[in-house]
Amino acid sequence: MTSFPSVQAFEAALADLREPEPHAEADARTRQGELTKPAGSLGRLEELAIFFAGWQGKARPKITRARAAIFAGNHGVTVHGVSAFPPSVTAQMVANFANGGAAINALSDAAGLELAVVALDLDRPTADFTVDAAMSEGDCLDALNRGAAVVDADLDLLALGEMGIGNSTAAAALCARSFGGSAADWAGPGTGIDGHGVARKAAVIDQAIAFHADAPRTAFETLRRVGGREIAAIAGAILRARQLGIPVLLDGFICTSAIAPLAAENPAIAGHCIAGHCSAEPGHRRLLGQLGLVPLLALEMRLGEGSGAAVAANIIRSALAAHDRMATFAEAAVSASL
Amino acid sequence: MTSFPSVQAFEAALADLREPEPHAEADARTRQGELTKPAGSLGRLEELAIFFAGWQGKARPKITRARAAIFAGNHGVTVHGVSAFPPSVTAQMVANFANGGAAINALSDAAGLELAVVALDLDRPTADFTVDAAMSEGDCLDALNRGAAVVDADLDLLALGEMGIGNSTAAAALCARSFGGSAADWAGPGTGIDGHGVARKAAVIDQAIAFHADAPRTAFETLRRVGGREIAAIAGAILRARQLGIPVLLDGFICTSAIAPLAAENPAIAGHCIAGHCSAEPGHRRLLGQLGLVPLLALEMRLGEGSGAAVAANIIRSALAAHDRMATFAEAAVSASL
Repeated sequence: MTSFPSVQAFEAALADLREPEPHAEADARTRQGELTKPAGSLGRLEELAIFFAGWQGKARPKITRARAAIFAGNHGVTVHGVSAFPPSVTAQMVANFANGGAAINALSDAAGLELAVVALDLDRPTADFTVDAAMSEGDCLDALNRGAAVVDADLDLLALGEMGIGNSTAAAALCARSFGGSAADWAGPGTGIDGHGVARKAAVIDQAIAFHADAPRTAFETLRRVGGREIAAIAGAILRARQLGIPVLLDGFICTSAIAPLAAENPAIAGHCIAGHCSAEPGHRRLLGQLGLVPLLALEMRLGEGSGAAVAANIIRSALAAHDRMATFAEAAVSASL
Repeated sequence: MTSFPSVQAFEAALADLREPEPHAEADARTRQGELTKPAGSLGRLEELAIFFAGWQGKARPKITRARAAIFAGNHGVTVHGVSAFPPSVTAQMVANFANGGAAINALSDAAGLELAVVALDLDRPTADFTVDAAMSEGDCLDALNRGAAVVDADLDLLALGEMGIGNSTAAAALCARSFGGSAADWAGPGTGIDGHGVARKAAVIDQAIAFHADAPRTAFETLRRVGGREIAAIAGAILRARQLGIPVLLDGFICTSAIAPLAAENPAIAGHCIAGHCSAEPGHRRLLGQLGLVPLLALEMRLGEGSGAAVAANIIRSALAAHDRMATFAEAAVSASL
């Protein structure tokens, strides 16, 4: 079944977003006030429990099935020398994921996440978006739907990630086109280019923004013109998860950039999303601020492939465990405050 | 067997601290550079793996057995109305720990930590330290040794925590006496007293600091005079863990305050310690800065009882899993950077 049969269906879904269940949120908030601890003393763990209660529609939410979905794509913009690694590494890393040798394999296991890896037409890189749209309408719609397809309805949490040599250039272009600012505001070292490389990358992004300046500024057109297949897939997964009421755990700068064009059209799209961490990639902090998301972790990670989201999934498990398992003051016969 | 048979033995142990194994650290650092990711891209996860390698003396450290140890004590200083809860809550919460209903029960389970709870003479609160030493020499030495006794030699990680109505006043007094600053620099709302309560608490601390001003400024005397049994037990556990080369994961302000008098005497004591989180209690950030510790988490938690340390233990597990399980560039036939 195709989640978004047309561009219009995708844009219509983005315009009409599901909201969390207010009664379940209120019940969870009440429960937090009754548990054996000073009010508010579990901080963001309390907020996470209430957040999940709203989206699951029950006062004591649970994570039974959680998935990390990692999307991979290749980028024509790499002809401009914007990455420290050759494009062949994308496919090599997908093989590494399949063999269990990447960081995300270890980190998703450690967090109890099943891992789904989706390689999107690696032998067909996107077009060089400084002189063309990155994808055709059909290719972009296909990528959105392949992202949506990983969102099984019985998931309780979806962590997202990406792999794609060159894709921090696409991410910066998406941010600049969605939220403004110069390319230099959004471009960073990515996997590890030096200062000259970052300047070259910023020039490439400026060129792309200028080339597409007169194109329609819809979410779909921005994704299609300066995004990438793996980034469009993440956008499709985010929107599909919203339709199903499944909380999404975002990873770093590139993963989060997938939501930028959607948020520029409807800022409420970030409402079911949690920022797993703040990456060391400089644009990420700015992007999270723009989206109104406060990251759970800040561990100077900058790997991508869902690694920060996977580590953050442990925080969510801890939050829901405390919320569900703790005794109330009445149950434990503990005196409330003086 | 008694770890610290005398005050002199405790002070001698503090003066002669074990160091990590430099070859194992170097081997772990080399391995991090060979794993299939851009160099440094796992940020603090890489540092944690190297840290554990040093203390475990092997390039691929593991956590097989990890324990959360929570110490409880009562405080004579509560006669001054420094807490939002009555002292009877300490014993009630210890019963809650035993029944599995507290936050630490859920959070230690979620992180795979076995839980040890040690209640220290709850029916004998410490003396009011504004007019007397909190403990006799014998009582303080006993508390140190009861803390040391939880440190089984085969532990790979020791997370520490506390419960004790009134103990954020003792913690602030320990910090002020160890590192200087006014009582107002270290006193905060604790479990939730208001601004007037914090001012009263600061006045109590100033009074205690003045009362003990001429006493010897050794680690032991500071712990004995303005500490508490559960805090001294944490100090004993920290020092014993150092003797055994076991990394310690610290919790919030009160737990961390146990190391303050030790660090004032020998700053190297923090070398095997990890700050699990930065608490919302204002003095904690200042204390961590004084100790040179950068917290793993900042989730606005302020519960104590080891809760922040237990959540942070998941980050350590993730770090070691990635370090141990990832393939190298050579193993995975992935191209290193251009």
